[in-house]
Amino acid sequence: MGAALPGLLRARRLSRRDVGGLALSDTLAPMSPERQEPQYTFSEEEVAAKSALARQFLETRSRLNAHVTAADNFLVKRYYNLDHNTYLEGGALPAKIKELMGLVVSAGLRCDDCISYHVIQAYRLGASRGEQEESLNVALVVGGSIVIPHLRRAYALLAELYPG
Amino acid sequence: MGAALPGLLRARRLSRRDVGGLALSDTLAPMSPERQEPQYTFSEEEVAAKSALARQFLETRSRLNAHVTAADNFLVKRYYNLDHNTYLEGGALPAKIKELMGLVVSAGLRCDDCISYHVIQAYRLGASRGEQEESLNVALVVGGSIVIPHLRRAYALLAELYPG
Amino acid sequence: MGAALPGLLRARRLSRRDVGGLALSDTLAPMSPERQEPQYTFSEEEVAAKSALARQFLETRSRLNAHVTAADNFLVKRYYNLDHNTYLEGGALPAKIKELMGLVVSAGLRCDDCISYHVIQAYRLGASRGEQEESLNVALVVGGSIVIPHLRRAYALLAELYPG
Amino acid sequence: MGAALPGLLRARRLSRRDVGGLALSDTLAPMSPERQEPQYTFSEEEVAAKSALARQFLETRSRLNAHVTAADNFLVKRYYNLDHNTYLEGGALPAKIKELMGLVVSAGLRCDDCISYHVIQAYRLGASRGEQEESLNVALVVGGSIVIPHLRRAYALLAELYPG
Amino acid sequence: MGAALPGLLRARRLSRRDVGGLALSDTLAPMSPERQEPQYTFSEEEVAAKSALARQFLETRSRLNAHVTAADNFLVKRYYNLDHNTYLEGGALPAKIKELMGLVVSAGLRCDDCISYHVIQAYRLGASRGEQEESLNVALVVGGSIVIPHLRRAYALLAELYPG
Amino acid sequence: MGAALPGLLRARRLSRRDVGGLALSDTLAPMSPERQEPQYTFSEEEVAAKSALARQFLETRSRLNAHVTAADNFLVKRYYNLDHNTYLEGGALPAKIKELMGLVVSAGLRCDDCISYHVIQAYRLGASRGEQEESLNVALVVGGSIVIPHLRRAYALLAELYPG
Repeated sequence: MGAALPGLLRARRLSRRDVGGLALSDTLAPMSPERQEPQYTFSEEEVAAKSALARQFLETRSRLNAHVTAADNFLVKRYYNLDHNTYLEGGALPAKIKELMGLVVSAGLRCDDCISYHVIQAYRLGASRGEQEESLNVALVVGGSIVIPHLRRAYALLAELYPG
Repeated sequence: MGAALPGLLRARRLSRRDVGGLALSDTLAPMSPERQEPQYTFSEEEVAAKSALARQFLETRSRLNAHVTAADNFLVKRYYNLDHNTYLEGGALPAKIKELMGLVVSAGLRCDDCISYHVIQAYRLGASRGEQEESLNVALVVGGSIVIPHLRRAYALLAELYPG
Repeated sequence: MGAALPGLLRARRLSRRDVGGLALSDTLAPMSPERQEPQYTFSEEEVAAKSALARQFLETRSRLNAHVTAADNFLVKRYYNLDHNTYLEGGALPAKIKELMGLVVSAGLRCDDCISYHVIQAYRLGASRGEQEESLNVALVVGGSIVIPHLRRAYALLAELYPG
Repeated sequence: MGAALPGLLRARRLSRRDVGGLALSDTLAPMSPERQEPQYTFSEEEVAAKSALARQFLETRSRLNAHVTAADNFLVKRYYNLDHNTYLEGGALPAKIKELMGLVVSAGLRCDDCISYHVIQAYRLGASRGEQEESLNVALVVGGSIVIPHLRRAYALLAELYPG
Repeated sequence: MGAALPGLLRARRLSRRDVGGLALSDTLAPMSPERQEPQYTFSEEEVAAKSALARQFLETRSRLNAHVTAADNFLVKRYYNLDHNTYLEGGALPAKIKELMGLVVSAGLRCDDCISYHVIQAYRLGASRGEQEESLNVALVVGGSIVIPHLRRAYALLAELYPG
Repeated sequence: MGAALPGLLRARRLSRRDVGGLALSDTLAPMSPERQEPQYTFSEEEVAAKSALARQFLETRSRLNAHVTAADNFLVKRYYNLDHNTYLEGGALPAKIKELMGLVVSAGLRCDDCISYHVIQAYRLGASRGEQEESLNVALVVGGSIVIPHLRRAYALLAELYPG
């Protein structure tokens, strides 16, 4: 995730405080030696500075995640850890592709927050606008016209991240 | 549902006016003799006074339900009645457990309004925060990371209802 | 679609500009000779003038669709064209019935934007309030109580479109 | 449902025996005076004689429903009754259209048994093959390519019901 | 899980062999000290001896799980471990209730294998037939009539597990 | 698709006969000049020869698709064409990655036939077993434990396609 972002923090997962039985170092810890944090082209702060929609999403998520962190629920922390590991670098597919895959399944399952998250992550990892659109195409054709309202909102975010 | 709440009314189901061919007494009527209204520890008014998120949810639902009530659609009223009976006391499982089950399936199906409703109902029936969280854990593991955005919002509501 | 609406335009699909390799005339073109645009009783402008909820929906959709149009994605345009053709007059079922069917499946799949769209389209094609409610009944019984939050919002829109 | 079918019985709902606290006469009873059983062009027996796929579906459903009937669960019986009433004649839309709507939402929600049931019901009520296909088209475009495996199986059933 | 079953083994999760980087002892390991295996009233072998449907389900799952075990995928093993921990004894809710909750959400999400699994697990933990049915009622009313085909199959399994 | 397969044909889409108003050459036609058929490493026949599960899937699909082809439904043909174009070579992402994305969203939406199809397509395009598993991992973590029954079946197919 590049440099730590004291302002926004890791809006999706846990804050950098120890959160009980499972310290954050565990929560974000790679599960196997070959797994590692990807090299991001942009930090979340840079994304938030570029796109008002991204900033709104990241701040809301950060604010709500504070309640999850404070709860210090053992199983939730494990799920966050597992989720975090899924998209790390070091497996058979690059992190960027896995984030785009996360985008496809999120759009197919029609989860706006998940779509925003993976669009931003893929952007941070250097995905082109064409790659984002082509991923959304797969979701549209597989998931049908009920995906369209989510597609519209995704395109509004893309327009801010890739401004011509 | 404890004492009648003239202000908030029964935000989920019908108002206490006769709503046509099926009077409210029918709409909320237990379907079999052994079914009965549970004993609530807290009224909806008390919940609304404690949590701004709960209040906002209950008021919005009440406002929108007025349109459903006014429509006086026969089949919708029957569905509300069936739905109401599902969670009554007097069956093989306590009402509190059934509300928590409603929470699990609502979270698994990713319905924010349904989650808020069942969190509030379980709270009114005396569920502890630990019971609420453990129910959400089942939904998270069964339903996957697309449940997480809904989990965050549920935890924000839990934080207000159980302010530690 | 009755007279062209320079203000609102076709809020769901593409604006009337050429959008690249596939001109709008193609995008909205009937796919087979017997398919044709239905005769609308009301224009989108008239609907927007009658209902604040409809207006808000149509304007938001129009604003977001501008991003889709600007992107000029070939496959998305094809999907919009296919979607448009699905509800045209000239097949085995009248356009009004197909819009009501779109409403049923949208409510069953719990897509608020899709519900609003098909309620408005069916209204524009002369559907009665009773027909709209009976369509929603099918969705409710098939889809269960998780449909109820969407039903409430649909009834708020119906109340504005059919003001008694 | 035309003449009673001692062999197949009502494959979807309850058998014609009294099933406890709610007699079958209640279970299939119209909920309001204007609701009435539709006039079927074909009985389930005739459908089963015409199509091996339909026969297999109806027999399996009948065999499994026997377990539901034997259980005599109060709430399940009420749900069956509500479900039965949803598709009766006498509302704002003809029974045939409502069965086709049931088909659309069943295909959109990808439930093979539900698709088979509504295809058969619509056929029994005189729906043409063109009407069945056009209903499935709405489901396909709304629900996307994941509907296609179900579409294939539906077309196999249609081929037997409309042979030529 | 009571006595080890050399024949059927743990049909849902991993076989009792070490499966690579994460030994089975890890895979089934409780995540926190207070978590512990529940006391089962019946072993899977006893369930399989009582019900042909249960036996078929458990054997198929065991056969297919062998492929998952052989693959030794790190993340899958972690997910199995997390899943296993979700239903352990020692949290705010008893294991039996959590298995019934798993049943509710599985039925609401219409997953036959998941339904069979949780019906069997709840049975092994002493759930009564009434508790199983009432759990399914919540799923039916929340999930709608598309749950009914799954309900029928669940009732066939219940009929074998609770024969009279 | 490599050499034409007179036996199995294109099990997913249409047979190589003209199917009415839209000739097959149209149905499979690339929608834009830069789109083109990918270079497959293996034909469907070779896959069917290697894996009994794949063969069973491809033959069933081919048999059922014959009914769809015979129906010659205009809109279905257009959808097949759109679907076909989604995964062609020549866009911002390679065909192999798009087939793996189709796998992820199919698993997340829990469609066994779709999973089998995309596993086979990705295999034919040279995807490694590790890439297939990592794609399924994304689906598992996003979609939750209800994905597991589908994962098991996918792993059985992978075991035949990548035998050691």
